[in-house]
Amino acid sequence: MDSVVQPNAAGTGAWPAAPRAEIVAVGSEMLTPSKTDTNSLYITEVLNELGIEVSAKMIVGDRIEDLMALVRLVLARVDLLVMTGGLGPTEDDLTRDAVARVVDKPLVEHPAIVETIRARFERRGMVMPEINRRQAMVPEGATVIDNPNGTAPGLWIPYGNRIIILLPGPPREMRAMLRKLADGPLAARVGRERLFRRVIGIAGRGESHVEQALLPCYARWKTWELPIDATILAAMGQVELHLTVRTADEAHGQSVLERAVADVRETIGIDVFSDRGESLEQVIGRLLTERGLTVAAAESCTGGLLTSRLTDIPGSSTYVERSVVAYSNQAKIDLLGVPRELIAEHGAVSEPVATAMADGVRQRAGVDLGIAIPVIAMPRSTPAR
Amino acid sequence: MDSVVQPNAAGTGAWPAAPRAEIVAVGSEMLTPSKTDTNSLYITEVLNELGIEVSAKMIVGDRIEDLMALVRLVLARVDLLVMTGGLGPTEDDLTRDAVARVVDKPLVEHPAIVETIRARFERRGMVMPEINRRQAMVPEGATVIDNPNGTAPGLWIPYGNRIIILLPGPPREMRAMLRKLADGPLAARVGRERLFRRVIGIAGRGESHVEQALLPCYARWKTWELPIDATILAAMGQVELHLTVRTADEAHGQSVLERAVADVRETIGIDVFSDRGESLEQVIGRLLTERGLTVAAAESCTGGLLTSRLTDIPGSSTYVERSVVAYSNQAKIDLLGVPRELIAEHGAVSEPVATAMADGVRQRAGVDLGIAIPVIAMPRSTPAR
Repeated sequence: MDSVVQPNAAGTGAWPAAPRAEIVAVGSEMLTPSKTDTNSLYITEVLNELGIEVSAKMIVGDRIEDLMALVRLVLARVDLLVMTGGLGPTEDDLTRDAVARVVDKPLVEHPAIVETIRARFERRGMVMPEINRRQAMVPEGATVIDNPNGTAPGLWIPYGNRIIILLPGPPREMRAMLRKLADGPLAARVGRERLFRRVIGIAGRGESHVEQALLPCYARWKTWELPIDATILAAMGQVELHLTVRTADEAHGQSVLERAVADVRETIGIDVFSDRGESLEQVIGRLLTERGLTVAAAESCTGGLLTSRLTDIPGSSTYVERSVVAYSNQAKIDLLGVPRELIAEHGAVSEPVATAMADGVRQRAGVDLGIAIPVIAMPRSTPAR
Repeated sequence: MDSVVQPNAAGTGAWPAAPRAEIVAVGSEMLTPSKTDTNSLYITEVLNELGIEVSAKMIVGDRIEDLMALVRLVLARVDLLVMTGGLGPTEDDLTRDAVARVVDKPLVEHPAIVETIRARFERRGMVMPEINRRQAMVPEGATVIDNPNGTAPGLWIPYGNRIIILLPGPPREMRAMLRKLADGPLAARVGRERLFRRVIGIAGRGESHVEQALLPCYARWKTWELPIDATILAAMGQVELHLTVRTADEAHGQSVLERAVADVRETIGIDVFSDRGESLEQVIGRLLTERGLTVAAAESCTGGLLTSRLTDIPGSSTYVERSVVAYSNQAKIDLLGVPRELIAEHGAVSEPVATAMADGVRQRAGVDLGIAIPVIAMPRSTPAR
């Protein structure tokens, strides 16, 4: 067992040019009808940056046979196994034990970890419960990964040509530890090739419409010396196009991506609102800030949803002056100065009333821009739990 | 091959009293940094209702070897395998092929499915593309599950004592088909025992505080003739306590749960806002409707978040009259009638100004209740993609 607390790049043999990883999240609470694992999204992002493909991800409960079966399956097929959770001090925390049994190494107590945990408790004026010694049990040959934000240390376990990484479940602890590994021993392990990505946001067009329009681009990109991989994803009210290239030459990769982005802009036109993965509200915030413009909103049945998205952006209080949710006709008259006759003549959901609402909120707030959304509330069922 | 389009309960041998299921979602798009599978939450809910435990769930890409390895692993360990996705007509849709190879049955064309798909296209004045014939390929011995909402049929595949269910990925199609199976052949397959659940919502207390207070209840519940299983989950700003019992006698199960709920109410008191899994905004909507009260909100840095949650409830337009997001002091003065001197004296984030905001919006809107939240915007980083 290594007594160094920083992981090193130990492990025998090189990985293939396009290494594969799988992710296993451990914890019965993620197998209920209301919870799932989301750590895997961040892990996928970090591994993809290093050019490591994620070929499967799993969630498993606190039953050692299930854990061992999954670990065996993954180790038979991929280069890297990342596991999260199950590293706490209780009897339910079985990740260490399951992995030690599969790689056939005894668990030995790591004195430096006991001391680190003991010191952590002492700094808070507490005595370390004996149960926490479990967290210092480490499979022989493993390297310990410091956890600056919690008691459960991580583990880096070489297994032949493969690597097993164990990380705690709380996102704050897991993220900091994985980031360090990605910059250090994992980067050393993979070849020089990396994955580079551009995320293009498109609003106002359906997925199949975008796909159809881009078919000639897809065909052209395949013939390039550095081929572009394109994935289209439909999100709420918008479409995301992910473009990736794999190369050891970042400058070349970026310039190829830039050419592909130009193709998309030429094909899709103004409906492209970002080529850097920004959200609609980020783009709007940037444009307003650059131009020094302020805005106020008049909503009706959207019930503050528009304003809520606008104000999700840090610094939005410099450009969002106010927002009014005017459900009733009386509120539209009182708060926005919409003439009663206009509503009577055209109805509350009409272009003249929408214009009057936008105008009203703009004038009363003394801002540059007014927005109004006079949609009809659609009947909705309660969201599924 | 069965030519009946409704699944039957075919399959040999009985399941154990507490059967286990695992869920496999198929599709490379769910292995990107921005997407994951959520179908499994609904599937877990439906299976749990039938007393079937979910012991693991997986996401796998469109590579047939990976799919086959996972299917083999699951079939070696559990009674039921539910798979979603990969049933479309393209070469990437490999679920049928992978399962047929693992259960070692040839794929044969099912003429009734071809006709159903052809008729679906014809109703839209289109000719069925030849590629859609792939969707009619069925492993010998499988029963076809009608898909009223799409072209991809589902499959019910007995494998010894186990059952494999293949469902399409789009939630609307998957849910309708699973619901029918749960009420029919799956219900026939499981024993008479079911899982009954109560979800208790608690606001204003931390998870560990609730846990500590409930320890005596947990101990008592374990000694009951029908023991209660309790799981505590922390959600945004609230804690959920899930209580479950497994029994064939629904009335008995419900009365035992009712006693446990009473224990929790006695221990936690007024911080329990629901014992039926309702959200805070559902409870508030119910209380306002029962009492015939109306409400208006004055928000500041929450930017419409409160109103957005209030108006997420169907029918909320009968009790939410309006909402004002008054970021600037001028907006608080103009829209809510807050005296300028009050802000100068106490600051915008103060109890007197909050009270004046609530009072102002209540009076101007002519409603029964006014709410104001004068929080300070906390510096936030942009959410991780």
